[in-house]
Amino acid sequence: MVALNSQRIALIVQYQGTHFHGWQYQPGQRTVQSELETALGAVAGHPVRVHGAGRTDAGVHAAAQVAHFETPSPIPATKWARILNQHLPPDLNIRGSAAVPPRWHAQFSALWRRYRYTLYTDAIPNLFAQPFCWHYYHAPLDTEQMQAALTPLLGRHHLAAFRRAGSPRKDSWVTIQDVHCTRRPPFIEVEIQADGFLYGMVRLLIGVLIEVGNGVRSLESFQKIWVNQRRDLVKYSAPAKGLCLLRVGYPDFPFPKPLWFDTQPLLMFNPVT
Amino acid sequence: MVALNSQRIALIVQYQGTHFHGWQYQPGQRTVQSELETALGAVAGHPVRVHGAGRTDAGVHAAAQVAHFETPSPIPATKWARILNQHLPPDLNIRGSAAVPPRWHAQFSALWRRYRYTLYTDAIPNLFAQPFCWHYYHAPLDTEQMQAALTPLLGRHHLAAFRRAGSPRKDSWVTIQDVHCTRRPPFIEVEIQADGFLYGMVRLLIGVLIEVGNGVRSLESFQKIWVNQRRDLVKYSAPAKGLCLLRVGYPDFPFPKPLWFDTQPLLMFNPVT
Repeated sequence: MVALNSQRIALIVQYQGTHFHGWQYQPGQRTVQSELETALGAVAGHPVRVHGAGRTDAGVHAAAQVAHFETPSPIPATKWARILNQHLPPDLNIRGSAAVPPRWHAQFSALWRRYRYTLYTDAIPNLFAQPFCWHYYHAPLDTEQMQAALTPLLGRHHLAAFRRAGSPRKDSWVTIQDVHCTRRPPFIEVEIQADGFLYGMVRLLIGVLIEVGNGVRSLESFQKIWVNQRRDLVKYSAPAKGLCLLRVGYPDFPFPKPLWFDTQPLLMFNPVT
Repeated sequence: MVALNSQRIALIVQYQGTHFHGWQYQPGQRTVQSELETALGAVAGHPVRVHGAGRTDAGVHAAAQVAHFETPSPIPATKWARILNQHLPPDLNIRGSAAVPPRWHAQFSALWRRYRYTLYTDAIPNLFAQPFCWHYYHAPLDTEQMQAALTPLLGRHHLAAFRRAGSPRKDSWVTIQDVHCTRRPPFIEVEIQADGFLYGMVRLLIGVLIEVGNGVRSLESFQKIWVNQRRDLVKYSAPAKGLCLLRVGYPDFPFPKPLWFDTQPLLMFNPVT
C-alpha cells in the first residue's frame, strides 16, 4: 500500500556478487534485494519493496544496477543514497538516488541492459582479477573468430538455445543492440547490450563462444545452434563471477552520466615503471 | 635447522591486505606470514620459516611481495606456487616460485622496494575502488604541487619525520630512488621507490602531502618538516587500505618480469560506449 503523498525513488546500485545469492529475494539466502529492503525498512520506518531492472544470478556483479521503491518518508530523494550506505555492507553500495515519476519502473521502463563478461587469459593466477573473471588459459582464444560468431546475433532473434529453465518469460525473443569482443591483455571482454536478457543467456552463450575461440567449433556450427534452437548442444554455462551488469538504459533517466557509466570493476595492469 | 641437501626457494606473494593483520607473525592474529607458514608446513611436512622482503602493515596490500624459505623437500622449486595455492585462502596467492642460491635473502638481497599509494577523488563512493584507495574528496588536490613537494625527497635523506615508533631499524637514512605523483581521474597515485622504508613512512608522508595538495601547507613548510625532522608536526597517517607494495628489486631475480611487474590492483574506469 502506497500513501497518496508517497514518492517514487530510483537507485543506482553497485555490488560485488561473490557473497550474494543473486539479486532476488529468496528465503534464508543473502540476496541484494533482501539487504536493500532491510536497509530501506530501517531508514523509512516501514516495510519497503524494491524493484530491480535485472535479476542477476548468484555470483554475478553489478556496476550500475537500477532499482526503485516507494515511500511516504519526507527524506529528500537525493539524500537516500548517502543514508542507505550507512546501513549497507561493504559489498553493496548505492551510487545515487533520485525522484522519478509515479509510473516510472526500473524493470518495465528500461530500454536496454548491458552486460560484460570478462576472461582472464594469463596462466598465472592474479588475486585481484580472480573475483571478476573466468580464469581461462587452457588454449589461446581467437577474438576475431569470436567477434565473427557474435556479429550475426545483432537484431531480433529467438534465442531459446541460450536460455536456462525456470525463467518467467513467455517467449525467447531478444533484440541484441550491440555485441563486442575485445582483447585487452591479459583480459578478453565480451559486451552485450539487448532490450532484455533470458535466464542464464550470457553465461550459456559464452560457454559455447569459448569453443569458437579455441577452435573446437566452427562459425557455422555456432550459428546453427541458435538459429535451430539447439539448447541440447549448449552444455556449459560460463562461471558467474566473470559476469557484470554494466548499465541499464532509460528514455528518461534522472541521473548524471558519470554516476552510472564509468563504474565497472576492471583491473588495469599498468606496465609503466 | 637446515639439512645439507635442502634448497632455498623464493616466492612472489600477492595479497589483499583487508583481512590480514599485516605480514609479520603475531600470536592470535591472522597474518600473511602465518598463513604462508601453515600452508608450507602442510606441504613440506615440517615446520617452515618464511622471510619476507617487506613487513607490510595491517590492511596494506601487496601486488608482488617477495619471500623465501628452505626445505629438504624433493618437490621441484617451480612446482611450489601451484601446490601452495591449493592450500591458501582466496585473499593470498603465490604468483611464482623458483630456486635461489643458499645465501640469497628476500629481505637482505633486495636493492629496492616500490610502493604505490592510491587516492580515489570522486565524491560518489565506488564499491570496486573502496578496498584499494583512500576516498579523499573533501577538497580538490593539486598534483603538480604534490609532485613539487615530493621531488626534493629524491636521494639520501634522514627521514625521521616520517617514521612511526616501534621500528627495529637503528637509523632513519633512506635513499629515495624514484617518486611520482600521477593523476588518473578519478584516481591520484603516488609511487615511491627506495632502498628501504621506515615503519609507517609512506602513510605518514601521504598524510602531510595531502595538505600540500589541498593548499593548506606550502612547499616550504612541507620541506621543513622532513629537513628539520619535525615528527611532532606529522599528525596524520593515511589509511592503510590505499597502500600497496608493488615490487621488490634484486640484482639476481629468478623470475620473468611479467610475474612481478604487471599485477597491481588498480581499477580501470573505462568510459568507452
